[in-house]
Amino acid sequence: MRVEGKSHRTIWLGPDRTSVEIIDQTRLPHRFETITIRDVRGAARAIKDMQVRGAPLIGVTAAYGVALAMAADPSNAHLDDACALLRATRPTAVNLQWALNAMREALEPLAAPSRADAAFALAEAIAEADVALCAAIGEFGRPLIEAAAARKGSGPVQILTHCNAGWLATVDWGTATAPIYKAFEAGVPLHVWVDETRPRNQGASLTAWELGKQGVPHTIIVDNAGGHLMQRGEVDLVIVGTDRTTASGDVCNKIGTYLKALAAKDNGVPFYVAAPSPSIDFAIADGLAEIPIEIRSQNEVTHIAGLAEAGHVENVRVAPEGSNALNPAFDVTPAHLVTGLITERGVIAASRDSLAKAFPEHAAKASARKG
Amino acid sequence: MRVEGKSHRTIWLGPDRTSVEIIDQTRLPHRFETITIRDVRGAARAIKDMQVRGAPLIGVTAAYGVALAMAADPSNAHLDDACALLRATRPTAVNLQWALNAMREALEPLAAPSRADAAFALAEAIAEADVALCAAIGEFGRPLIEAAAARKGSGPVQILTHCNAGWLATVDWGTATAPIYKAFEAGVPLHVWVDETRPRNQGASLTAWELGKQGVPHTIIVDNAGGHLMQRGEVDLVIVGTDRTTASGDVCNKIGTYLKALAAKDNGVPFYVAAPSPSIDFAIADGLAEIPIEIRSQNEVTHIAGLAEAGHVENVRVAPEGSNALNPAFDVTPAHLVTGLITERGVIAASRDSLAKAFPEHAAKASARKG
Repeated sequence: MRVEGKSHRTIWLGPDRTSVEIIDQTRLPHRFETITIRDVRGAARAIKDMQVRGAPLIGVTAAYGVALAMAADPSNAHLDDACALLRATRPTAVNLQWALNAMREALEPLAAPSRADAAFALAEAIAEADVALCAAIGEFGRPLIEAAAARKGSGPVQILTHCNAGWLATVDWGTATAPIYKAFEAGVPLHVWVDETRPRNQGASLTAWELGKQGVPHTIIVDNAGGHLMQRGEVDLVIVGTDRTTASGDVCNKIGTYLKALAAKDNGVPFYVAAPSPSIDFAIADGLAEIPIEIRSQNEVTHIAGLAEAGHVENVRVAPEGSNALNPAFDVTPAHLVTGLITERGVIAASRDSLAKAFPEHAAKASARKG
Repeated sequence: MRVEGKSHRTIWLGPDRTSVEIIDQTRLPHRFETITIRDVRGAARAIKDMQVRGAPLIGVTAAYGVALAMAADPSNAHLDDACALLRATRPTAVNLQWALNAMREALEPLAAPSRADAAFALAEAIAEADVALCAAIGEFGRPLIEAAAARKGSGPVQILTHCNAGWLATVDWGTATAPIYKAFEAGVPLHVWVDETRPRNQGASLTAWELGKQGVPHTIIVDNAGGHLMQRGEVDLVIVGTDRTTASGDVCNKIGTYLKALAAKDNGVPFYVAAPSPSIDFAIADGLAEIPIEIRSQNEVTHIAGLAEAGHVENVRVAPEGSNALNPAFDVTPAHLVTGLITERGVIAASRDSLAKAFPEHAAKASARKG
């Protein structure tokens, strides 16, 4: 997507082709800076510290991390260590495991000397595949927005989104934003309500930033406000991303998604989840019982970073001294609250049958693994 | 309640008995400072700028504001002006109108020279009545927490609250917190989940602060997290306050309350609203259609104030340059999501019949006014 008129991705191979460059997302929206990652520890740190975040981009970054590891030492032991290090960074997003499994399966059969080149090639292929997945989600999701515009007759289609499932969460296009960008390019009048998404404010700091850079009309709201807007008829549809969707259609996504799904249901607002297949975990069914929820540092709740008047970024404390906080990073929206999953193979119901029909090869593999 | 071992109220008559002192709540939790208000403009400013906030305390402050106005000029014209000035400060809380109507009805029949003394006496009576209302709510609400403890058998009762309906929102005790303080004093093991309550963070900055000062165990969470905790069985009951409750039991309260009520319903968690009668508007029935929702400055969303490392309070910008925000301050929770209203006359259903039965004098007056 565009940043100041220049086309950008979120991750790309360095000019030396042995390093990887990323946008440092912890500096947005106040600074646009890139970082060069030279080894697997740097890749793991970038994921852990959320310089890159978003389930798809975490997967791609992990793939490049394995490639950097193979360039340094292509032994089996180092492959194991690299995968273990990367796997431990974030427990919830399934794309991370998906990418590491894909890399390992491809690299293990190869002789050590050929692993580095193969690993970079595969990581690039995963990145390109992510772009294609997102573009397809955009094409399949665009008609949902066009249909809402047609139903409405006049005025912009009002779309609410939570957190950042934008191009910054992927390599390009985004998942939840892909239908928005595609519809916007096609001239559909639309406006996006951006949940700020505490505690890390990915909505206000990333989604609003990237929508602004593409010229998409949008308004930031606090996470508390979405239900009120739906009650007042100010939301035509909700589109969010997912960190892990189960075989039965339960959706694990950024904390607070579940509350918006409840409000959408209560007000008859369609609630869509943009779900590329690498974020679907066909091995599990019950999202509430089976998905580990990452608990992050309480400092993300007690403190907030922002731009001080003097122009520097300052981390200010909002909680009183002596009060503790709890910081679960994700919640689970049960399948029955989801109107549809926007996948790279079309919009499908959030149900075991629809998922198995749309992705028979994954469903079969998962049930074979279980049996 | 206690602050550093010393007993405090949120508003009190100055030593000269012609000024009023308040705690400056915009400085909490980082500074405990008091302000002296000497005229009606100061009272209006304190309400408008949220140095005092919370429906009950807004009402009491407005009553003192009228008294200050009468001390300066007890004419009818000045009484009119003072009421108009104060009425315009905040549109949603009904206590403000209730207090101004009470003051005007009492003062209008009096000769001008006796109005100032009468006004101060009446304002003090309204403040004392508020303390009594809150204490009664505490006594009627305490058994709900005791019953939850008995049902649970072991471990603390987990109570979730939103915004600040604590003693800082009233003169003393609070509304939603009164049952909590009473149960805590009675030795019931309990723990409070404190919604931080963006955009102004009254949960993190006021509720956590006052619970901490009383020694009540509590944990701050972002507004997004409550639904997840309810799904996991980590919330035994919800108690919130109200800025205006309708004759049919719809509850207008701080933005985001509705989302928590939906989650409570979805998870079978009792959802109680502490509603002293001055916050009940018997003149209206449909909360969604009839309650004006205050839209506050977008700066409250795009910026956050907190304590910088250097020890000063800094207002930092969290949104990107060029992105706008919308800031509705309240939402409406429909009566069918409310388990019960904790009033000064007992816990009642959120329904027209129960409200009319519990407060026959108000219900009759309202329907006479309508007829």
